[in-house]
Amino acid sequence: MGNIQAPRGTYDVLPQESAKWQEVERTINELCNLYQYKEIRTPVFEHTELFQRGVGDTTDIVQKEMYTFQDRGDRSLTLRPEGTASVVRSYVEHKLFGQPDQPVKLYYTGPMFRYERPQAGRMRQFVQFGVEAIGSKDPAIDAEVIALAMDVYKSSGLKSLRLVLNSLGDTESRLAHKQALIEHFAPSIEEFCGDCQNRLEKNPLRILDCKVDREHPLMATAPSLADYLNEESAAYFTQVKDYLDELGISYVVDPNLVRGLDYYNHTAFEIMSEAEGFGAITTLAGGGRYNGLVEDLGGPESPGIGFAMSIERLLLALEMEKVEIGQDQSLDAYVIAMDAASKKKAVSIVRDLRANGISADMDFTDRKMKAQMKSADRKKARFVIVIGESELESGKAAVKEMATRDQQEVPFGELAESIQKKKSLEE
Amino acid sequence: MGNIQAPRGTYDVLPQESAKWQEVERTINELCNLYQYKEIRTPVFEHTELFQRGVGDTTDIVQKEMYTFQDRGDRSLTLRPEGTASVVRSYVEHKLFGQPDQPVKLYYTGPMFRYERPQAGRMRQFVQFGVEAIGSKDPAIDAEVIALAMDVYKSSGLKSLRLVLNSLGDTESRLAHKQALIEHFAPSIEEFCGDCQNRLEKNPLRILDCKVDREHPLMATAPSLADYLNEESAAYFTQVKDYLDELGISYVVDPNLVRGLDYYNHTAFEIMSEAEGFGAITTLAGGGRYNGLVEDLGGPESPGIGFAMSIERLLLALEMEKVEIGQDQSLDAYVIAMDAASKKKAVSIVRDLRANGISADMDFTDRKMKAQMKSADRKKARFVIVIGESELESGKAAVKEMATRDQQEVPFGELAESIQKKKSLEE
Repeated sequence: MGNIQAPRGTYDVLPQESAKWQEVERTINELCNLYQYKEIRTPVFEHTELFQRGVGDTTDIVQKEMYTFQDRGDRSLTLRPEGTASVVRSYVEHKLFGQPDQPVKLYYTGPMFRYERPQAGRMRQFVQFGVEAIGSKDPAIDAEVIALAMDVYKSSGLKSLRLVLNSLGDTESRLAHKQALIEHFAPSIEEFCGDCQNRLEKNPLRILDCKVDREHPLMATAPSLADYLNEESAAYFTQVKDYLDELGISYVVDPNLVRGLDYYNHTAFEIMSEAEGFGAITTLAGGGRYNGLVEDLGGPESPGIGFAMSIERLLLALEMEKVEIGQDQSLDAYVIAMDAASKKKAVSIVRDLRANGISADMDFTDRKMKAQMKSADRKKARFVIVIGESELESGKAAVKEMATRDQQEVPFGELAESIQKKKSLEE
Repeated sequence: MGNIQAPRGTYDVLPQESAKWQEVERTINELCNLYQYKEIRTPVFEHTELFQRGVGDTTDIVQKEMYTFQDRGDRSLTLRPEGTASVVRSYVEHKLFGQPDQPVKLYYTGPMFRYERPQAGRMRQFVQFGVEAIGSKDPAIDAEVIALAMDVYKSSGLKSLRLVLNSLGDTESRLAHKQALIEHFAPSIEEFCGDCQNRLEKNPLRILDCKVDREHPLMATAPSLADYLNEESAAYFTQVKDYLDELGISYVVDPNLVRGLDYYNHTAFEIMSEAEGFGAITTLAGGGRYNGLVEDLGGPESPGIGFAMSIERLLLALEMEKVEIGQDQSLDAYVIAMDAASKKKAVSIVRDLRANGISADMDFTDRKMKAQMKSADRKKARFVIVIGESELESGKAAVKEMATRDQQEVPFGELAESIQKKKSLEE
C-alpha cells in the first residue's frame, strides 16, 4: 500500500511554522481585546441553504467551490467557505439583536474551505481571521473595522500595505447604475461573448470583469457607480472617509472595486500587499458593509460590517517583507542522566522544574551522555543539568549555563529556585 | 423561509463562553511549552483510507460514525474523527522520523467529527486537545504523557479526578490471551448471542463488552489479560507504574480497561471526573501506546504514545466543580461623546487609548449620554471619559474612575498616560 498524504490543497503546519501561527493569533486576540471585539466560534459545517441564501446563489463560491455533502441523516451540509454567513446565522439564532449594547462586535479565527485550483496563498483549506460588527450603521464603525484590520498587519510588522476603498451605495443607487450599464451595453451587446449577453439583464456589473471582452472600447467608457450614488449614499461614503482621515489611515478610492459576494453594499474595501515578490494574489483582506443580510437570514433590520483576512497570506507577506516572528522557542533546561540509576532522579527533577514554570526536557531513548549533550545544543537549552553516580551520592547536580559556560553545583532541592533566579537576571 | 439553525449536534461558542475556551487554550499552550511538546496543525479532512487503516476497519468509529464524502475531484474524504491518525500520517509524510531528536513530541487542538446521538459531552463536532510522543518506547515517556494530561486538569482547577491504568501487552501477550478466551468461551458459545458467536474467532475480547450476555456466569470467570502478559510486557508495565509513583501521580489499575481503537498496545489509560452531577459520560481523556501504527501507515518502526481529551467535557467538569474561569473580560475605558461635534474627537481618543494598550470602546448608535453611561456600566468600564462642547473648548476631558467615583480633568494628549498610571497602581 502506498503512503497516504494530506489531501490536495491542504497542508500540515509543523512545529517551527506553528510558532508563527501562535504569535499571529496572540496579536489578533490582544488587538481584538483592545478594540472590544469578542470571540465567537461557529461549526465547521452548516446547512447548505445558509450559504445559498447568505453568500448568494449566483456567486462562484456557491456555484463552483463548495464542499457539499449529505450526512447520515440526509441533511445537505457544507463546509463553510467563509465566515460572515455563519456569524450572522448565530446572531439571529441566539437573538443577539436583543442585547442592549449594539453593535455586537464579534471576531473569529478558523478554517474555511473552497474547492479551487491550489496555488500559493490559495489553498482548499485556509484559515481566516474575521470580524463582524452587527447592529449599527454608523460610518464611524466602518472606519473602526478598517482600522482594526490595518492594526493587525502593522502590529505583525508589515509595512508595504495599500488600502483600497469604494462605495457600492444603497439599493437605489445600484439599481440606477445597473440601468445605466444596460443602456450603455445593450445597443452593441451582440459584439460581446455569450456569457456577457447573459449577464446583461441579470447582473451587468459582471460584464466589467469579463476576461474575453476586456479590450472592447465600450469597457473603458462604461458608466461608473460613483456617478450614480444617491445623496444619502454619497454622504455616507464621505463620512467614512472623514473618519479614516481622523484615524490617520490613508487609502485609495477605486471605483472598480466590487467584492465577489452578493451581500455587500455601501463601504467595500480591500487591503493589498505591496511587498516585492508577493506573486499574483496580493489581496490580504477584504470586507464591507452588509445592510440587509441579517434580514435575509430571518432577523430584524440590523446593519452590519466586517472583513476577513487570510492568515496564510499574512504569513506570506511577512516572509516577503523579511519580518521574522515566532522565534522564541528556546528551552530553559535539559536534564542529562548519566546512567540508568540516575534516570528516576532526572524524571523527578524535570517534574520539579516544570512545576515551577521552567520549561524542561530530557532524553527518552537511552542515549550516551555525549549524544544527550548534542540534543541539548540543538534544542538551544539555556541550562544543562547533569546527574550521575557522584551527584546522586552528594545530592547536588552540576548546572551548566550554556551561554557563559559557567558551571555550578546545586543541591537537588534548590535547582528550580536557582534557575529561576538566573533567568530573571537575564530578562 | 424558516430560520436556519446550526446543524444538529453542533453548537456556537458565544463571547462569554469563548473567554473560557481561550483560558483553557492558554493553559494548554503554557503547559505544552513547559513539557516541550510543539504544536502541529493537520487538515480538518483526510483521505478516508487513513482512518480505515489508522483507526481500524472494524471499530465503531469507522463503521458507523464518520462524515465521509466525495469531493469535486472524486476523492473519498472524511472529516477527522480523532487526531492520532492524522499526526502519524504527518510524521511519516514529512519524514519526522529522520530528525535527530526522537521522540518527536507534538500536540494539537482542534475540531473532530463523529456522527452520534448528541447528548451532553457528546456532540457531533467536538474539540480535542491531544499529544503524541513518537519515536520512543521508554516507559518514562508514558509517564510524562500521563503527567501532562493530569497537569492540564489540575492547572485548570479540577480536583476530583481518577486515573485508570491498564496494560494491553504486546502482540504475543494479546494472542495468548485471545487463545485463552476462545478456550474459555468456545465450549458454551451456543449459549451466547449471535454477535458474540461471531466475535469468538475474530475478536473474543469484545465478548466481554456484550450488553446482552453480561449476566452469563462465564463472563465473571473469563481469563484476564493481566495473567497473560509475557515477561517483557509485565516488566514494561511495572516500569510505567514506578515512574508514575516517582511523579507522585496516583492511579487505579483496571484490567478491564480496553480502548475502542484498534491501534493500542501496552499502556492504556483513561482519566475520569469524579465530580458529582457529571452525568453518564465521565471519561475526560483517554490514551495509550501505539507501537506499530507508524509502520501501518508506511513509516519505519517508531513506537508512540499519546492521549486526547475533550475540551467540552473539561469545561463541563469545571462547571460541576464550580471552578470559574474566563472571568476577566473588563473594559478599561468607555468614551462618551455628548454631541455630534464631539464624536470625531471621541474616535481619535479611542484610537490613542488602544494604541497605548488600553482597551477602549464608545457608542456607535447615536444614543444620548445617559444611555451611553448605562452601556459603560454594563461593559464594566473601569474609566469613563466624557467629551462635550466645553471639553472641546478647554482641550480637557472629564475622566471618571468608576470604582472610586473619583473625577478628574485631563488634557486630551495625556489621557492614555493618565489611565495607564492609574491601572498600574491598581494592579
